[in-house]
Amino acid sequence: MRYKITIEYEGTDLLGWQWQPDGNSAQGFLETAIKQAFGRFVTENIDNGALVWGAGRTDAGVHALAQVAHFDLNLDIEEWKLREALNANLRDLEAPVSIITAEKVSDDFHARFSAQGRGYIYRILNRRAPSVLLKNRVWWVPVPLDIEKMRQASKCLLGKHDFTSFRAAACQAKSPIKTLDKLDIIQKGEEIIFEVEAKSFLHHQVRNFVGTLKMVGDGHLQIDDVQKILEAKDRKKAGVTAPAEGLYLSKVWY
Amino acid sequence: MRYKITIEYEGTDLLGWQWQPDGNSAQGFLETAIKQAFGRFVTENIDNGALVWGAGRTDAGVHALAQVAHFDLNLDIEEWKLREALNANLRDLEAPVSIITAEKVSDDFHARFSAQGRGYIYRILNRRAPSVLLKNRVWWVPVPLDIEKMRQASKCLLGKHDFTSFRAAACQAKSPIKTLDKLDIIQKGEEIIFEVEAKSFLHHQVRNFVGTLKMVGDGHLQIDDVQKILEAKDRKKAGVTAPAEGLYLSKVWY
Repeated sequence: MRYKITIEYEGTDLLGWQWQPDGNSAQGFLETAIKQAFGRFVTENIDNGALVWGAGRTDAGVHALAQVAHFDLNLDIEEWKLREALNANLRDLEAPVSIITAEKVSDDFHARFSAQGRGYIYRILNRRAPSVLLKNRVWWVPVPLDIEKMRQASKCLLGKHDFTSFRAAACQAKSPIKTLDKLDIIQKGEEIIFEVEAKSFLHHQVRNFVGTLKMVGDGHLQIDDVQKILEAKDRKKAGVTAPAEGLYLSKVWY
Repeated sequence: MRYKITIEYEGTDLLGWQWQPDGNSAQGFLETAIKQAFGRFVTENIDNGALVWGAGRTDAGVHALAQVAHFDLNLDIEEWKLREALNANLRDLEAPVSIITAEKVSDDFHARFSAQGRGYIYRILNRRAPSVLLKNRVWWVPVPLDIEKMRQASKCLLGKHDFTSFRAAACQAKSPIKTLDKLDIIQKGEEIIFEVEAKSFLHHQVRNFVGTLKMVGDGHLQIDDVQKILEAKDRKKAGVTAPAEGLYLSKVWY
């Protein structure tokens, strides 16, 4: 029986989504919780050698509101019982990971390869005073940002482009060509929130977008510089990589 | 020169607002930061023997979005410089405390005695799954709550009453009679947010309101039980005290 789970995690103390030999990961906590809860019903021989497939990787410090993953059990268990059993074990592990929903899916569902798109949000706190309540949850930018300039500069990024300039050196994607479907910049009180959607992303793509657009907002770059950076197809031309702490994997759709 | 500061704090690791000999408090961190920043300009002989007067105390674990306090310095310093100097020292102390604004006020301003009213918000997260992103920031209530019943039950609390039933045993107020000006219950996604305002409050009054109304929401109490509890003037009749982690001192006005 294949199960699809939707997962929240707080990434501050995680090395990221993916299992690592030398520290905690969301995947690692989930695999331990599944083994503790379902022992002999666990199906180990999943295609990548791991127990749990995620829709996408996230880096150390990045959060998830709704990561999606799947795994198999030799057990037909009610969805709510599965969710509660996993959450009880995650709490025992003191894992910063929580199962929001669990559902049965057909055997051809694949969290990564069936995904039609992914959404991220990025939160900037734009005020003079640092925030203690939003520590590790936002990028604190104390200098005023011009949102309208950031919005205008962001428009050239929409659509299908070679995003080499916004790609991390470590990116494993075969092609730097991706199609950006949405990049909205919303003011909400003292926060500036980026909502970004695409079928898939390059490594660090959202954080490099935000880091570059922030430099438009604070005047270090001009509006039309973003178009030039895009066309340069050169990572060294783009702005800073925004820190992990403001980034949230917010949805995956199928 | 008298200064008024507006303060955010994350109360999880604090014993509360007030200075304590045996642990960290918001007041204690502020006094240390002020002494570090302004040494010989500090005026020690403030009326209560402390350096900083707050608008009101908060308990261990309670947060503040905008606590207000005042203190005196033998120094005329620009407001933004004062704010930045205090925040730099609070960061050095790794204090979960941040100065949002600082302003010069007249010598007869008093953070506590000049206050015309105080506002609190209380956040309940009402969903099956525990939240790791909102840990220590909300009261997680996994059973469904009927907001409309809670709203109806809350109406009898508005206005001037003897609130003995909602008062902590340790409360030091001279009279249990207070006037409640606002108690709104708002749904925001998976959260239920209480917005409460009065000139002043009894100890635990907001948390006892929320704990009792939550028991109406989950069916342990009936709507008209809240009126009966109020009229009983007996703390033993009211519901549970809602946990500190969902409570925020959100504003003080003058």
